[in-house]
Amino acid sequence: MRGFFEPNSVAVIGVSESPDNLARRIVQNLHEFEYDGIIYLVGARGGRAFGRRIYKSVSDIPDQVDLAVVLIPARYVPDVIEECGQKGIRRAIIETAGFSELGKEGKELEMRLSEAAARYDMRFIGPNCIGVINRANGLAVPFPGLKNVFGRGGISIISQSGGVGLDYLNMLASENLGLARFASIGNKLDVDECDLLEFLIADEQTSIICMYLESISDGRRLMRLARSTRKPILLHKSNTGKLARDIAQSHTAALSEDDAVVSAALEQVGIARFYASNTLLNFLKVLPLPPLRGNRLAVLSRSGGHAVICADACERHGFSLVRFPREFLEEIEKHFRAKVIRLTNPLDLGDLFDYDVYDRIVERTFSLEDVDGMVFLHTYVSAVEREASRAFLKRLEEHSFKAGKPVAACVSTDSEEMSVLRRTLPHPVFTTPEDAVAALALKRDYRHEVLEEPRVEQAGLDIDGIREILSRCEAENRPVLLDEGLRVLELAGIPVARWRVAESPDEAAVHAEELGGQVAMKLIASEVSHKT
Amino acid sequence: MRGFFEPNSVAVIGVSESPDNLARRIVQNLHEFEYDGIIYLVGARGGRAFGRRIYKSVSDIPDQVDLAVVLIPARYVPDVIEECGQKGIRRAIIETAGFSELGKEGKELEMRLSEAAARYDMRFIGPNCIGVINRANGLAVPFPGLKNVFGRGGISIISQSGGVGLDYLNMLASENLGLARFASIGNKLDVDECDLLEFLIADEQTSIICMYLESISDGRRLMRLARSTRKPILLHKSNTGKLARDIAQSHTAALSEDDAVVSAALEQVGIARFYASNTLLNFLKVLPLPPLRGNRLAVLSRSGGHAVICADACERHGFSLVRFPREFLEEIEKHFRAKVIRLTNPLDLGDLFDYDVYDRIVERTFSLEDVDGMVFLHTYVSAVEREASRAFLKRLEEHSFKAGKPVAACVSTDSEEMSVLRRTLPHPVFTTPEDAVAALALKRDYRHEVLEEPRVEQAGLDIDGIREILSRCEAENRPVLLDEGLRVLELAGIPVARWRVAESPDEAAVHAEELGGQVAMKLIASEVSHKT
Repeated sequence: MRGFFEPNSVAVIGVSESPDNLARRIVQNLHEFEYDGIIYLVGARGGRAFGRRIYKSVSDIPDQVDLAVVLIPARYVPDVIEECGQKGIRRAIIETAGFSELGKEGKELEMRLSEAAARYDMRFIGPNCIGVINRANGLAVPFPGLKNVFGRGGISIISQSGGVGLDYLNMLASENLGLARFASIGNKLDVDECDLLEFLIADEQTSIICMYLESISDGRRLMRLARSTRKPILLHKSNTGKLARDIAQSHTAALSEDDAVVSAALEQVGIARFYASNTLLNFLKVLPLPPLRGNRLAVLSRSGGHAVICADACERHGFSLVRFPREFLEEIEKHFRAKVIRLTNPLDLGDLFDYDVYDRIVERTFSLEDVDGMVFLHTYVSAVEREASRAFLKRLEEHSFKAGKPVAACVSTDSEEMSVLRRTLPHPVFTTPEDAVAALALKRDYRHEVLEEPRVEQAGLDIDGIREILSRCEAENRPVLLDEGLRVLELAGIPVARWRVAESPDEAAVHAEELGGQVAMKLIASEVSHKT
Repeated sequence: MRGFFEPNSVAVIGVSESPDNLARRIVQNLHEFEYDGIIYLVGARGGRAFGRRIYKSVSDIPDQVDLAVVLIPARYVPDVIEECGQKGIRRAIIETAGFSELGKEGKELEMRLSEAAARYDMRFIGPNCIGVINRANGLAVPFPGLKNVFGRGGISIISQSGGVGLDYLNMLASENLGLARFASIGNKLDVDECDLLEFLIADEQTSIICMYLESISDGRRLMRLARSTRKPILLHKSNTGKLARDIAQSHTAALSEDDAVVSAALEQVGIARFYASNTLLNFLKVLPLPPLRGNRLAVLSRSGGHAVICADACERHGFSLVRFPREFLEEIEKHFRAKVIRLTNPLDLGDLFDYDVYDRIVERTFSLEDVDGMVFLHTYVSAVEREASRAFLKRLEEHSFKAGKPVAACVSTDSEEMSVLRRTLPHPVFTTPEDAVAALALKRDYRHEVLEEPRVEQAGLDIDGIREILSRCEAENRPVLLDEGLRVLELAGIPVARWRVAESPDEAAVHAEELGGQVAMKLIASEVSHKT
C-alpha cells in the first residue's frame, strides 16, 4: 500500500486544456499541497496545462511513473489501465464513476478493468472514489479542489464515500486536528478497507484510524487486524437499515449487513463504532488526552448555569462528582478569598476573574487523588479577555498532561472567537457541557487492548533472514523453493503447519512419526513449481 | 413588564472612573446597541465617564428615571433600592450577585431588598442576573461586554442563568437567527419566568419563546400561560438530577423538582422540552419553515455517502421515504439526461453539476403530492462553486415556502464558507444529515394548539372600557367598587361568576332566582372595601 502514498512520480490521466476539466483540479491539489514528486499530465487530446505538456498517452512519458491517477469516462478506463500496465505502472487510483454502482453494464466494465490490472500485477484504488492524500509528502489527488488547511498529525482516514471523506477532512481542519493519510476507496474493486487498515496499522505516521464504511468487505480480516493493534480504530458505519440499502448499493455498490451482528463483532475487537460524524468527532477530540482511569470527575465552571447543565450530563453519563476534601476547600478559600466561589463540585468560580488563581485551582484539583478527570467550563467575552483566555486554555492542557489526567474544555464565547480558538489551540474545545461529558464517557468506556496473537512485527519480523533467502534465490536465478517459502513465512511471524525437509524416503518416515497425525508430502526441486 | 424593555431613561448604578469597573460595560453595551433613550450614570464616588457626569446618588438626577440597573456590592443594594423608590423609579434590574444563592446572610439581604421594593410598588428583575436586551430600541444592559451582531427577528429568550443566556445569544448570532427580547432573571426574587412569559406571549415582536430554567417558580401559571398561546415555547430545563441539586441551589437559588413530573406536565400544554442547547437549536432552525404535514420525505443529495447516512437517520426517526412515481423519474431522466443520477429516493444527483437543473428537480419534487418535506444534502468546494451554491441555497428556501413544505438544507463544505453561509443565508443550515432529520422529526412531533380558553386579547380585551371605569374611580377619588371590579375583569376577557347588582332586598331576590343555584351576596359601598 505504501506505493499509493509515497510515489516518486504521478501521472494524472484525463487532463485537457478545457478550464472545466475535472482532472485539472487534481493537478491543482498536487500544487496546493506541494507534492514533492514529479507530476505528468496525460489526456487523449494532448496540449498544455500548468506550464506542462499533456502527453496523449502514458506510453509517451519518457520516465518511470509510480502511480497513475485516472479520471476519464468509464468506458475508456480498462484500455487505459492496460496501457499503464504496459508502461510498467503498478499502482493506480481510478476516480471515474459509472461502474458496478450503475448496474450490469458497469459491472462488465469492472471485470475488464480487473483483468487488465491483474495481467500486470497492478493494485488499484477505486473506481468511483476521490483518491488519497498524504500530508507528509503533499500527494493530494482528490478531484474536488482543496485548500491545504490541514495540520500535520496522527489521524488517518479511510472513507468509502468521497463526500463523507471530505466532511471528515473539513472536520479535522476546523478543529485543528492533525492529518496523516486519507484514502477514499469507492467501489473497492481491488484495494479495500482492510488493505489500507493493515498499512495504517504499521504506518509510523498514523496513531488514530478513522473509517467511514457503508459495507464491510472482509469481516474476519477486519477483526483480525483490529485485534493486532493498539491504535484506536473509529468506525462510522452507515447503511444500517432498509431505507439506506438501495442508495448504498447505487452509491458505492455496497451491500448492507445485519447491523446488530456488525456492532457485536466490532465491540469484541475494540473498534469504536459510531452512527454519526459529530459523535465520532467528540471522541477524536479526547483521544489524545491522558487516559481517564476512573469515573470520578471534577467540574470547574465560570458560569453557574453551565455547571448545573454539566452536573446533569455527568449524571446521565454515569459519572460521579468527587466530594472535595475540606482541607482543599479551606485552602482555596484561604488563599483566594473569593467570596462568590461556591465550594462544591461543580466548583463555581463565580465572579473570580483571575486567571492565575484558575491555574492554581486547576493544579490543586488535578493533584487530588480522587479526581480522575476534569471538565472546565469557560465562559468569556472575547472583547474583554481574549488574550488571557487563550493563554489560559493553552495552559489548561499543559496541566492535564502534567497530571496525567484528561480535561475536557468547554468554551462559551462568540462564534468568531470560537473559530479562532479552534484554529489556534493545540487541543480541541467543546461548545456544550453535554458534548464535553459525552466525549469523556466515550473515553472512559473505550477499551482496546491487543487481543490474542501479538502484532506480526512485535513477534519479531526477521527482515534480514528473509532478505538472505530471497537474495540467494535471485543470485541462483531460480524460484523460491517450498522449504524456503515456509521459512520466509515463519521469519515474517506467520504461523505455518509444522514441516520438515526429508532427503530420502527413510528420513521422511522418521519425520512423519515425529510430527504425528496425518502428514502431507510435497516435492522440492528447482525445476518443479510447488503443487500439492 | 413593558417597563423593563421600553424605558425612556435608564440609570446605571455602580459606575466608577476605574477602567475595571463592571458597570461601565453596561454603559458600553447601551452605546453599542444604540439605545434610543437617555442614560444616566450613578456611582458613590462620582466623577466622569463616557463624557457624562457620574451622579453620586439617583436623587441627584434632575430628570425622571424609568429604569434603574444596579451593579454594586450586595450589602448596599437594599438602601439603593430605597433611594430609587424615593426618586419615583418603578422598575429595577439588579445584576449584583451574593444573595440567597450564598446562604443565610444573602437571604436576609433579599428580604430587606424585597421590603424596600414593595414600599414603592417597584418591580425588579434579579438579583444575580445579567438583565435584559430589547433588540428594537437598543436597550442592552448585561454587564458582559457584547457586540451587536444580532439580527432583528421574532425569537425571545428568558434565561435563569446569565452564562447560558449568553450561550443562547451566541447561538442566535452565529446562525443568523433574529432576536426580539432577552431577559436573564437570576434569583427571580420578584419578576419570574411567568411574568416575562406573559409579556412575551402578548408581545407583537415575539413569535418564538425560548427559556432556560433551573427551577419552575409557578408550574400552574406556566401551564396556564402555555395553554393560552399559539406561540411556540421551547424550554431547556436543567437541574434534573441529584448531582445538579447543590450547584443549582448555589447558582440561582433554584430548587429542583421531580423531573418526570415536570416533563409530563410540559408535554400536556405543548411546551417543547429540551435537555441540551444544541437540540433546542436544531428545532429553532426548522420552526420558521412551512409546516410538515406528514411523515413522507424526499431526500435529494449531491453526495451518495450523505444520502446513505440520511436514509439511516430517516429510518431511526420514523420517517418514510416516498417512492417516486415512474413518470417523475422518467421526466427527470428525459429532461436532464444525467447519466450518474440514481433514480431512487434518496435521489443521488451524482455528477450533475447544474444548479438550474437542481432548481427544477426541487420544484418538481415539492410538487409531488406524496412529499411532505425535503432534505437537501449539499456538498461543495467553496473555491469552485461558492457563488452558485450560495444563490442556490437561497432559492431552495423560496421553493420551500412556495410549496408550503419544509426543506432542511444540510451543507458540507469548508468551515470558513460554512460560517459565511451561517451569517448570510436568510434561513439556517445543518451540518450533518442526522441533525437535519432530527430537526424535521421535532417539527413533525411538535403539537402546540391553544387549549381550553382562548387568548385574553383574542377574546377582545376592551382597554377603553376598562380605562373609563378606572378614570371614573380616580376622578371620584375612591376605590374600585365590587361591580366595577367584576366588569373590569370581564372587559379584560377573564371569566367571572355570573353577577347582578341589586339596589334593594326585593331586587336581590329576583336576581337570585334568575341566576339559580346557590348565590353569594356582597355589599357594595365606597366606604366599605369588598369582603365576602
